[in-house]
Amino acid sequence: MSDSSTHDWAHHYAGRTRGMQASEIRELLKVLEDPAIISFAGGIPDPTLFPTAEISAAYAAALSNPEKSSGALQYSVSEGYGPLRDWIVGYMGTRGIACTRDNVMIVTGSQQGLDLLGKLFIGGGDTVLVERPTYMGALQAFGPCEPNYDDLLPGSNATAASLSERAKSRGGRVAAAYCVPDFANPTGVSMTTAGREKLLDLCAELDVPLFEDAAYEALRYDGPAYPSCLELDIRRTGGIDASRVLYCGTFSKTISPGLRVGWVCGAKDPIRKLVLAKQAGDLHSATINQMVIHDVVGRCYDSQVAKVRDAYRIKRDAMLAALDRHMPKGTEWTKPDGGMFVWVTLAAGRDAGALLPVAIKREQVAYVPGRAFHATGGGENTLRLNFSMPTVERIEAGIARLGKLFA
Amino acid sequence: MSDSSTHDWAHHYAGRTRGMQASEIRELLKVLEDPAIISFAGGIPDPTLFPTAEISAAYAAALSNPEKSSGALQYSVSEGYGPLRDWIVGYMGTRGIACTRDNVMIVTGSQQGLDLLGKLFIGGGDTVLVERPTYMGALQAFGPCEPNYDDLLPGSNATAASLSERAKSRGGRVAAAYCVPDFANPTGVSMTTAGREKLLDLCAELDVPLFEDAAYEALRYDGPAYPSCLELDIRRTGGIDASRVLYCGTFSKTISPGLRVGWVCGAKDPIRKLVLAKQAGDLHSATINQMVIHDVVGRCYDSQVAKVRDAYRIKRDAMLAALDRHMPKGTEWTKPDGGMFVWVTLAAGRDAGALLPVAIKREQVAYVPGRAFHATGGGENTLRLNFSMPTVERIEAGIARLGKLFA
Repeated sequence: MSDSSTHDWAHHYAGRTRGMQASEIRELLKVLEDPAIISFAGGIPDPTLFPTAEISAAYAAALSNPEKSSGALQYSVSEGYGPLRDWIVGYMGTRGIACTRDNVMIVTGSQQGLDLLGKLFIGGGDTVLVERPTYMGALQAFGPCEPNYDDLLPGSNATAASLSERAKSRGGRVAAAYCVPDFANPTGVSMTTAGREKLLDLCAELDVPLFEDAAYEALRYDGPAYPSCLELDIRRTGGIDASRVLYCGTFSKTISPGLRVGWVCGAKDPIRKLVLAKQAGDLHSATINQMVIHDVVGRCYDSQVAKVRDAYRIKRDAMLAALDRHMPKGTEWTKPDGGMFVWVTLAAGRDAGALLPVAIKREQVAYVPGRAFHATGGGENTLRLNFSMPTVERIEAGIARLGKLFA
Repeated sequence: MSDSSTHDWAHHYAGRTRGMQASEIRELLKVLEDPAIISFAGGIPDPTLFPTAEISAAYAAALSNPEKSSGALQYSVSEGYGPLRDWIVGYMGTRGIACTRDNVMIVTGSQQGLDLLGKLFIGGGDTVLVERPTYMGALQAFGPCEPNYDDLLPGSNATAASLSERAKSRGGRVAAAYCVPDFANPTGVSMTTAGREKLLDLCAELDVPLFEDAAYEALRYDGPAYPSCLELDIRRTGGIDASRVLYCGTFSKTISPGLRVGWVCGAKDPIRKLVLAKQAGDLHSATINQMVIHDVVGRCYDSQVAKVRDAYRIKRDAMLAALDRHMPKGTEWTKPDGGMFVWVTLAAGRDAGALLPVAIKREQVAYVPGRAFHATGGGENTLRLNFSMPTVERIEAGIARLGKLFA
């Protein structure tokens, strides 16, 4: 068939994602397979921390008798496995969020939550407010809706009126705001309570939903715990069903990403619509994996999170210490209280993208250039370093090599 | 936030899917939970046929040592687990389709294949050609693209020119054709080779892709095996990379739907774009489930399919015999050579939708009224009966009760 058969945005989208991430990710994954390369490029958990024994026991239990296994292997409802949704209700309760089963749906990783939110809220030509830099997977998830992007607080001093005006001049409206308030991908930085309140003010003035990506929330190593945007908005509105915040959570960073289980928590009405969109998209997430996650979090969620935090705290400390020792003057970096990433800003004029091939070929170290995380341009002298995957020894060795390269 | 915050189509879509399927499905699922009700309403496999022992052994094997388990529980590539894609290449080869790994991607059930195809090929206002009746889950999957629908051959004698003209008058173009050529959901009927060739002629004249939903292809109990549309198109074009057919396969009907593993097979270029859309949508399907399916199909695919065929053949025969015995004059039904469904046409003027509450409450039998499967209206006097789930005894008892109701 002719190439024009694919819908216009497909070209646009394929071009954008290919340019931005897919080919890069492919190269980076190849790099990860080469043990000689020290990779700070991934955004993936340390597999030695997976609760493999508990997961293995949970699969065996789910298939241990015909009554259980016939449910585990069968089609199931789009909103997800009831007992897991109930566990999440309890978990959200410990985070200050009073909700019921109808406020929670299961998704195939929180990435699918972002995809469904885009489908539900973003129309062609609309504007989405994002941090600069922001998670590039979110830009990909919203891509099919072909939105424009504008800068979110605190990186911008734009007002609701000026943002609305600019969105209108681009042929749409401000449709939503998206943020990663805790230990953000890619910067590792958290928004303060005041920052969150200011963001909620802006969303209220614009009357738009706020997509809160809480992927890293559980990975706090020290520093203050801030209330989630959802919790703050519930305090304003009096209850979750009046809130404009849609919270995306995941078990990928705490238990295992390979099972693809996350959730969305928010007001009943949008959750009901998101469930319909999920039904249309893939019917439901894998039944047995939802049962396994439910079993595993019941057995060991707190101790598992504690184990992951202890291991990543050590790695973060190692990376910050190595940066202190090896980075040349004029280089700056974030000091995250949690998450998986440190964000480095090179001296003005340096180009982290142009340096990457040298880093990989000569120094045998990989990272992600920062430009890909900027929806509205910029960031040439920035880069993202991951500390969750490499060992402490490799962190020290790799940062030393980068220090030489950036000198 | 105000209700107008959700994008326009969301209302449209929520309204359509709710009216069409979601509430119905929910009710039907409740009915399935009540053992007193004989349900012919589902479209789900008989769980006693799941290869539970093999699946259980495969999960244990995938988690048996750190090298394997760290892969099984980790993030993986969007196109899917390589060894499973290779197995599918071999399987497609036995179906007359020469292809390579780059022609195959893994999806979260073939439903996700349809969702991604809609995203890639269908624009707002475009027209999709579908059979009348057709699989309602496909209409849901294409729903976010807000297409119009027109009737596909052989139910229509429209020409490429008249279809193009009508699509243009509706503000778009014919974007794609969709069909379930083998043992279709909902009718159980297969297209003949001549019908498939006619359909390919039409798609060629329109220069549009053909989405071939092969969900039931493996479930043939007797009668002739027809070549797939993809195979026929490869014969025309000389190779898969020149074909306009995108074939959606699944392990849901043969192994287990709860693992959510299906595939799309087609020309490299659209497959590459679909992989990007999948990456944006949920990153990848559950890693461990892909490994488990690969292990299970390697152990027992042929014997498992033979087991399922033998069991469903008996149930199909029981249903056809019961219909013969109990249906009143003027009632007609299909005689499928495979699949999971028989399609019943009541005497003109009867309304299967209006009779459903009586069927459930008085006769304690459930089915799906046919209207929901008609994208372009009609079908009031039709209904779908599933024979894969109920036992032979319940098939006989339930059809007897329906015969009384429809008399």
